Amino acid sequence: MIKAGIIGSTGYAGAEIVRILLSHPEAEVVWYGSRSYIDQNYSSIYGNFFKLVDAKCMDDNMDQLAKEVDVIFTATPQGLCASLVSEEILNKVKIIDLSADFRLKDVSVYEKWYGIDHKASQFIEEAVYGLCEINREDIKKARLLANPGCYTTCSILTAYPLIKEGLIDPDTLIVDALSGVSGAGRGAKVANLYCEVNESAKPYGVANHRHTPEIEEQLSYAAGREMLINFTPHLVPMNRGILATEYASLIKKDGKLPTASDIQAAYDKYYGDEFFIRVLGDGVYPETRWVEGSNFVDIGFKIDERTSRIIMMGTIDNLVKGAAGQAVQNMNIMFGLQENMGLNMAPLFP
Amino acid sequence: MIKAGIIGSTGYAGAEIVRILLSHPEAEVVWYGSRSYIDQNYSSIYGNFFKLVDAKCMDDNMDQLAKEVDVIFTATPQGLCASLVSEEILNKVKIIDLSADFRLKDVSVYEKWYGIDHKASQFIEEAVYGLCEINREDIKKARLLANPGCYTTCSILTAYPLIKEGLIDPDTLIVDALSGVSGAGRGAKVANLYCEVNESAKPYGVANHRHTPEIEEQLSYAAGREMLINFTPHLVPMNRGILATEYASLIKKDGKLPTASDIQAAYDKYYGDEFFIRVLGDGVYPETRWVEGSNFVDIGFKIDERTSRIIMMGTIDNLVKGAAGQAVQNMNIMFGLQENMGLNMAPLFP
Amino acid sequence: MIKAGIIGSTGYAGAEIVRILLSHPEAEVVWYGSRSYIDQNYSSIYGNFFKLVDAKCMDDNMDQLAKEVDVIFTATPQGLCASLVSEEILNKVKIIDLSADFRLKDVSVYEKWYGIDHKASQFIEEAVYGLCEINREDIKKARLLANPGCYTTCSILTAYPLIKEGLIDPDTLIVDALSGVSGAGRGAKVANLYCEVNESAKPYGVANHRHTPEIEEQLSYAAGREMLINFTPHLVPMNRGILATEYASLIKKDGKLPTASDIQAAYDKYYGDEFFIRVLGDGVYPETRWVEGSNFVDIGFKIDERTSRIIMMGTIDNLVKGAAGQAVQNMNIMFGLQENMGLNMAPLFP
Amino acid sequence: MIKAGIIGSTGYAGAEIVRILLSHPEAEVVWYGSRSYIDQNYSSIYGNFFKLVDAKCMDDNMDQLAKEVDVIFTATPQGLCASLVSEEILNKVKIIDLSADFRLKDVSVYEKWYGIDHKASQFIEEAVYGLCEINREDIKKARLLANPGCYTTCSILTAYPLIKEGLIDPDTLIVDALSGVSGAGRGAKVANLYCEVNESAKPYGVANHRHTPEIEEQLSYAAGREMLINFTPHLVPMNRGILATEYASLIKKDGKLPTASDIQAAYDKYYGDEFFIRVLGDGVYPETRWVEGSNFVDIGFKIDERTSRIIMMGTIDNLVKGAAGQAVQNMNIMFGLQENMGLNMAPLFP
Repeated sequence: MIKAGIIGSTGYAGAEIVRILLSHPEAEVVWYGSRSYIDQNYSSIYGNFFKLVDAKCMDDNMDQLAKEVDVIFTATPQGLCASLVSEEILNKVKIIDLSADFRLKDVSVYEKWYGIDHKASQFIEEAVYGLCEINREDIKKARLLANPGCYTTCSILTAYPLIKEGLIDPDTLIVDALSGVSGAGRGAKVANLYCEVNESAKPYGVANHRHTPEIEEQLSYAAGREMLINFTPHLVPMNRGILATEYASLIKKDGKLPTASDIQAAYDKYYGDEFFIRVLGDGVYPETRWVEGSNFVDIGFKIDERTSRIIMMGTIDNLVKGAAGQAVQNMNIMFGLQENMGLNMAPLFP
Repeated sequence: MIKAGIIGSTGYAGAEIVRILLSHPEAEVVWYGSRSYIDQNYSSIYGNFFKLVDAKCMDDNMDQLAKEVDVIFTATPQGLCASLVSEEILNKVKIIDLSADFRLKDVSVYEKWYGIDHKASQFIEEAVYGLCEINREDIKKARLLANPGCYTTCSILTAYPLIKEGLIDPDTLIVDALSGVSGAGRGAKVANLYCEVNESAKPYGVANHRHTPEIEEQLSYAAGREMLINFTPHLVPMNRGILATEYASLIKKDGKLPTASDIQAAYDKYYGDEFFIRVLGDGVYPETRWVEGSNFVDIGFKIDERTSRIIMMGTIDNLVKGAAGQAVQNMNIMFGLQENMGLNMAPLFP
Repeated sequence: MIKAGIIGSTGYAGAEIVRILLSHPEAEVVWYGSRSYIDQNYSSIYGNFFKLVDAKCMDDNMDQLAKEVDVIFTATPQGLCASLVSEEILNKVKIIDLSADFRLKDVSVYEKWYGIDHKASQFIEEAVYGLCEINREDIKKARLLANPGCYTTCSILTAYPLIKEGLIDPDTLIVDALSGVSGAGRGAKVANLYCEVNESAKPYGVANHRHTPEIEEQLSYAAGREMLINFTPHLVPMNRGILATEYASLIKKDGKLPTASDIQAAYDKYYGDEFFIRVLGDGVYPETRWVEGSNFVDIGFKIDERTSRIIMMGTIDNLVKGAAGQAVQNMNIMFGLQENMGLNMAPLFP
Repeated sequence: MIKAGIIGSTGYAGAEIVRILLSHPEAEVVWYGSRSYIDQNYSSIYGNFFKLVDAKCMDDNMDQLAKEVDVIFTATPQGLCASLVSEEILNKVKIIDLSADFRLKDVSVYEKWYGIDHKASQFIEEAVYGLCEINREDIKKARLLANPGCYTTCSILTAYPLIKEGLIDPDTLIVDALSGVSGAGRGAKVANLYCEVNESAKPYGVANHRHTPEIEEQLSYAAGREMLINFTPHLVPMNRGILATEYASLIKKDGKLPTASDIQAAYDKYYGDEFFIRVLGDGVYPETRWVEGSNFVDIGFKIDERTSRIIMMGTIDNLVKGAAGQAVQNMNIMFGLQENMGLNMAPLFP
């Protein structure tokens, strides 16, 4: 039985790790870290766990944690994981960091977009970017795992095969994405009050959202060269779910546009054996309700011959594949377990 | 492996049985009945099951079903199950009926409140009312199981111990309940359109909702005499969840009102060992979000000494404990499985 | 042109006064008080007023305000208005207080339920309780107007005629009410975040909500004797709207229950000429969507002969008739204007 | 007093015309056409109008209507208006058609995208496209007014000045739009049920939505040449509101990208005097909540120097500026009234 500790267990992502691991046959949470709620019953904060979790919230004692657990999930604001990690810690325990601290390989990009100094840049190179379907082999050996962002997971996976196969022009990629409100976290802010969000849709972080360089870095690897994109996130009134609608110009071969079959073949090549990626195919569009509560990624597409563009669409549950689910998937890979263990629950609808 | 057939598998309750049984280690759905969608892929109707269910919708052939399955769930409108059941069928297969056809012991009450003739009244006496925590012993032997209504499950369980123990006056019981919209089913009606329901709350079925006699019958057994109640359902804008707020006058003993400890003791006496009932206790109130997606019933209460009344509050997920979950719980009991098998998922929040 | 100042103009009720007075032909806001946002553009806080309100937020300078305006609306937390009012101020300007400071005539009841000392109890007797349809004559002469609470407005008006006419037993009255989330205000609290409220319903303040004594006091006047009630508020996921469902035992006359006509006649007697009260009648139930954005009160009822009880149901928009709309209605009465001036907008649906 | 008749008065757009005209000082509805509800009280279908509208629904008798009213609003499915209009009718009464029948100048484009034969193509040339801020002069003289679509109004107005001024490359324009559910109408369809739409976001009509050629035609006039765009609508769970997020490559002049000031100047040039268009400016983004219930169009933008693109964002209330409000604005222009008469209500928030 893998013993897991969570730093930041009272945020939405932390609580989702708790939910998932409660059904996991080979792992259990033994440390519910939460600075804000030390000594309070965990189930008094998340009433859904009443009678299911009998534990109190603990402080973030990294040394103690490293002794008691096999894996630490850090579901905390940017900067915290970087301030806690050390060679000594990494020698004892695996770390799966849900923050952005180790996602970007270029520390200057991190410091520019996040506006903070990186406290542990010596571990950036070692850290593995945990987009499971792309980096599986590296993940197996990781000590320090950078769990991808929610928007990024969805945005990258939706476009990856077409970029990798040279079917679309990287310089034309535009990602327009919608997110449910849980992505904004559980902090008490006026902007996230029910009445402020309900019955409204809004763009934010236009041309400067922090997930932009993360998407760009990963897709640049696929493209084989540097690429810049436009990424526009929007907040829409629902609890969970991310929908990325992506636009790119198709690249002609021998004067002809790729066909729907060509596109489908590219998706199949990379995702045909993937349990969690469901390619809906040509003209079938994903909806966030069909992935809610699950670790699935649904992808659909449509070619517009009038404009020679393709529209790619992907959906995930931001708290599952976009955070806690992918973190557990990474844990499974890192510990040699079956990759979908504890993660094969069907989506909840309605 | 128990083979299950579902008649009405494309309604919300039917689809919820599918979702639950996908994770059940000892049962599987082998017949997806749906008259409206015959020959269509089940996952084209419920996209959440894409790649999880590979089956087409079938007609309602009861004879064929009886040969092929061990248990039939009828998640259909009132009257259908009564029109299909027969001694021959019941000799071959167990039936768990999610409609009201066999819930009321007095056929005249059924016919009055539902406005239809009962087609199989000869089976009413045999049918067992499947409120698991109350009728467990009878359920074990049942061939024909009447799965309780959603409002009724919540309303009865919330008040049952206090009535049984004579702590409240049955004649004063008032049940004021709220329901999410999935309780109204998947039929295409203007009244259930998004824009009609969203941003509004409304009472309906005031003083004549069909769940009234069902609550009255079961609570009358507990009271040891006939009782009449007021039951007022309301529709509120959310997908799932029932909240019953119940009022009753406390009965004094030796001139004194029962204390919160007395009330707690009564709940503990009946529910102390129940996996699915979580008594939150004095001054802690249930919220539907804490049970969403799960089979739990959460119950809280508050004594008002000013008015000598008690306010009891209970919550369930109407599609789980109020329909599909309780149906599977009944199946588990009927087939001698562990009662919470396939049903111990934690609630999903947010 | 009446000049109005608002203290607390950046709360939801304050902003609703702004919205209403923008269309009022005889009044205008000249002072947008808001301690939290001093010197910020009002329309930067409420974007709906961009290009409609060109003003900055001001501090709460009561003396200055008294010189510059004809009426002050205090849309502030309990205690503030009481701390600001004085004989000197009241000699210069009319005050319409949307808090509870002057609603209860018994200062000890106020101090017990609100848990604060009353700073200006000498004005309690003079203050007029501004439930327009009941106290219209007193309102005309008021200097200090106590604007009723949202739950109370709806709860009182729904039951008032039946209590006044002796048709129901006051000791049996139970008020079960639902509210949209704007009633909780614009403060940044975790409990009111979108994801905490959405997809959930919950009771709160059971048996101790502060609107209880306010309802009791006013209905006691109607009953001609002291009465105690049960009042249970619930939060449901919508922006606006209150629905009160009220239960009471009917009083027989000559061995007979009152009929629906008797009930209708009682409502007509008190509300037949009221512009803002729409009695829907027997078996027609109000829904909050039909009053959204308007100052209407919709009332329906149903007699249950089985239990000899009546179920009365009322709806209002909590921010309009439950706060800002009634405040403006009171202003109209106090200044001798047509009572529905600026308030006759139709409800917005959907 | 202008007498107005509405064909299709029980759809959402029709009912919104009713709401707006109830506050209009110079117009009144005298004919509530609705084939589905003939002889029923209008207020029994839209409870918000109880005591405000005292009329029954009428059949669609065009000849009778032409005698009794000054203007007919047709808020009906595509094809109906075209089947009713005639020279004789147009000689007697002005028609404002909210359907697409007369929006496209090329009948073959209409027939291709809508899949129906045009029954009155002889009037296409005469019909005026009623985008008020662009076509005001022509609207003044129109007999037959084609009221623009909801997505189109928002999409066109957001990009128009930048295309007209040659600041962006027309061939790169991508419009990604979100809509509330009222845009789907009041028809009873499973896809629009509360539980199907709530807690989900989805794209639809990708690369083939019918508003595409309408946007293209109007923007082509601005560009001075034919242009093709990508337009992707999405459904998000809210009642009202459209948000269009639009992407285009900026055109360099003398090797330099336009600045935010250049962009602002272009918007000011065309919209500086417009009452209903509120240009929020550089880095301020519109949100649908700030226009709800009003006829405003809010527009913001952001230049991304990294990609040399601009992101333009616009919001409207789809039922007001996207349908009924613009229809009344057109009526005001056609009848020589002040353009914002009856339309200057502030947006409703929250």
